[in-house]
Amino acid sequence: MPFNSREDFLSVLTNLPTTDKSYTDFARHRQDSLTKPQGSLGKLEELSIFMAGWQTREFPRLEKVSCLVFAGNHGVVSQGISAYPPEVTAQMVQNFKNGGAAINQLCTLSGAELKVIPLDLDRPTGDFTEEPAMSEEELCKALQAGADAVPTEADCLLLGEMGIGNTTSAAALSLALFGGGGQQWVGRGTGLEDEKLAHKTAVVEKAVKLHQSGIADSFELLRRLGGRELAAIAGAVIAARHNRIPVLLDGFISTAAAASLIRSAPDSLDHCQVSHLSVEPGHRHLVEALGKSPILQLDMRLGEASGAAVALMILRAALATYSGMASFEEAHVSRSVQ
Amino acid sequence: MPFNSREDFLSVLTNLPTTDKSYTDFARHRQDSLTKPQGSLGKLEELSIFMAGWQTREFPRLEKVSCLVFAGNHGVVSQGISAYPPEVTAQMVQNFKNGGAAINQLCTLSGAELKVIPLDLDRPTGDFTEEPAMSEEELCKALQAGADAVPTEADCLLLGEMGIGNTTSAAALSLALFGGGGQQWVGRGTGLEDEKLAHKTAVVEKAVKLHQSGIADSFELLRRLGGRELAAIAGAVIAARHNRIPVLLDGFISTAAAASLIRSAPDSLDHCQVSHLSVEPGHRHLVEALGKSPILQLDMRLGEASGAAVALMILRAALATYSGMASFEEAHVSRSVQ
Repeated sequence: MPFNSREDFLSVLTNLPTTDKSYTDFARHRQDSLTKPQGSLGKLEELSIFMAGWQTREFPRLEKVSCLVFAGNHGVVSQGISAYPPEVTAQMVQNFKNGGAAINQLCTLSGAELKVIPLDLDRPTGDFTEEPAMSEEELCKALQAGADAVPTEADCLLLGEMGIGNTTSAAALSLALFGGGGQQWVGRGTGLEDEKLAHKTAVVEKAVKLHQSGIADSFELLRRLGGRELAAIAGAVIAARHNRIPVLLDGFISTAAAASLIRSAPDSLDHCQVSHLSVEPGHRHLVEALGKSPILQLDMRLGEASGAAVALMILRAALATYSGMASFEEAHVSRSVQ
Repeated sequence: MPFNSREDFLSVLTNLPTTDKSYTDFARHRQDSLTKPQGSLGKLEELSIFMAGWQTREFPRLEKVSCLVFAGNHGVVSQGISAYPPEVTAQMVQNFKNGGAAINQLCTLSGAELKVIPLDLDRPTGDFTEEPAMSEEELCKALQAGADAVPTEADCLLLGEMGIGNTTSAAALSLALFGGGGQQWVGRGTGLEDEKLAHKTAVVEKAVKLHQSGIADSFELLRRLGGRELAAIAGAVIAARHNRIPVLLDGFISTAAAASLIRSAPDSLDHCQVSHLSVEPGHRHLVEALGKSPILQLDMRLGEASGAAVALMILRAALATYSGMASFEEAHVSRSVQ
């Protein structure tokens, strides 16, 4: 999947496969035959039907699950918008590689294969309060890195990120996409103090004001206000779609990165679930704007795909019940008397 | 733990061990040292601290997890308050034993050992719109069955139930405990039609009106408005507490059964988490009245401990991150610059 230019990108983004109704119909019918009141497994039932439709399998599976964590650095940190210094991005990448981070434990537990992809950490993006975050070439390279990291045979893809300063990018993307004022999209990120929140909001509003008129499509949105790890997530979402791989987006930043795609292709996130509702306040507005219903709400705000790895266990519960339960007929259980 | 009389029961219920602060302090301190912004794992952090305090272990574990599903039949079904015929209770017990139910798949997935305990299924309780559901002897036997089923060496206990008609019992217990009118506590159960909901509400209100003046304590509450499987859950909650075993309650019925205990011992559910928020509308009111925050909200309403088994995976995520992550010092990651 080549992302050599804006045209390549938009062409791939606007020619997307859809779900296969014959498989969702099969799954829905099977759910209604199983030994439980119809609908009583709630979200687990919905997820099994979603998986069947995208995997185009009567019995979807989760044998090979890939968890991609992209890392990038951001020029906008020079504006003092993060509680942590930028060198933490590389330090945490090392922590991922040493197996010491949350996502390492959660991938082991949930059965996902973790791949960490640092993207030019020694070259932060441009400060988007003054210039576009990336050149066209830089953006293409980041999109390509994301797409290339997706194993085409994966049964499910978990997407997450690490990048000091990247809630500022996510807030800017969200504001440019949906409006509503900076305050709605800006939160504490890793733990910003009260007095610095207003400053972060001003930074986000300044950036969007500078670039708004130049944002004609998803490409330009990501180039001006994104970051390398956010662009890579967007590229991975598209690559997954073309391979009919269902995606679990992590929290605010991953969702904002993916949301950039709807600027040019409104249906481009149909194969994505939002794993959890982050405490980062912009996330609630974002999932509402996207019409998504997060699987979990555990007051998490870590990133690293940590929420996606936890949500993978819920997906496993959905498929275990869907595939393993007996039907009323098989079990000789009486149906409703109404 | 003998439950031979009301006096035995109340004595055991009102002499309960509490959590050990030295272990919760240790766990909280450890969480704050791990490579993540403090608090960013949200509910996972809280759960690890909860587990440490009750297990009285610096590193709590989930090696032996017991899932108990109690089944009982209810005289009140003769009032026409369920969408399913009462023989389904025994049919589903057989389905559990054959491995075909949701809880079988979920226990296998989450690593819990399932034990199904049918309680005199051929002898339904009394119809509590006309008489107490159980005699003192019958209640003692059910409480004892619950307590005896708890393995004293378990690291965690999941509690669930099966019993056609038992949302009616749960609603009656809730109304007697917290007031508020029958409508607040009555829902569709396995899927009751609109026109039968008002009838179910009237049945619940009639029962509570009949017994209200006789309910002096938790024993009498369970005896008059409970059922065998609800009493067994109450007995298991007490036995778990005396062995410092953390408990995952399932949905509306399990929570209502456990809630009966607070009538005589307000702190008796401190070692219990509510696994998920059921779609059964009374559950929301019930968890609010108990000051509990359910771990999951997946629009489930099946019972069988299905929500508890899914929540067990969240507990595992809590302990995996707590035990496995590196500290800032170990990983050489810089701390917040604020």
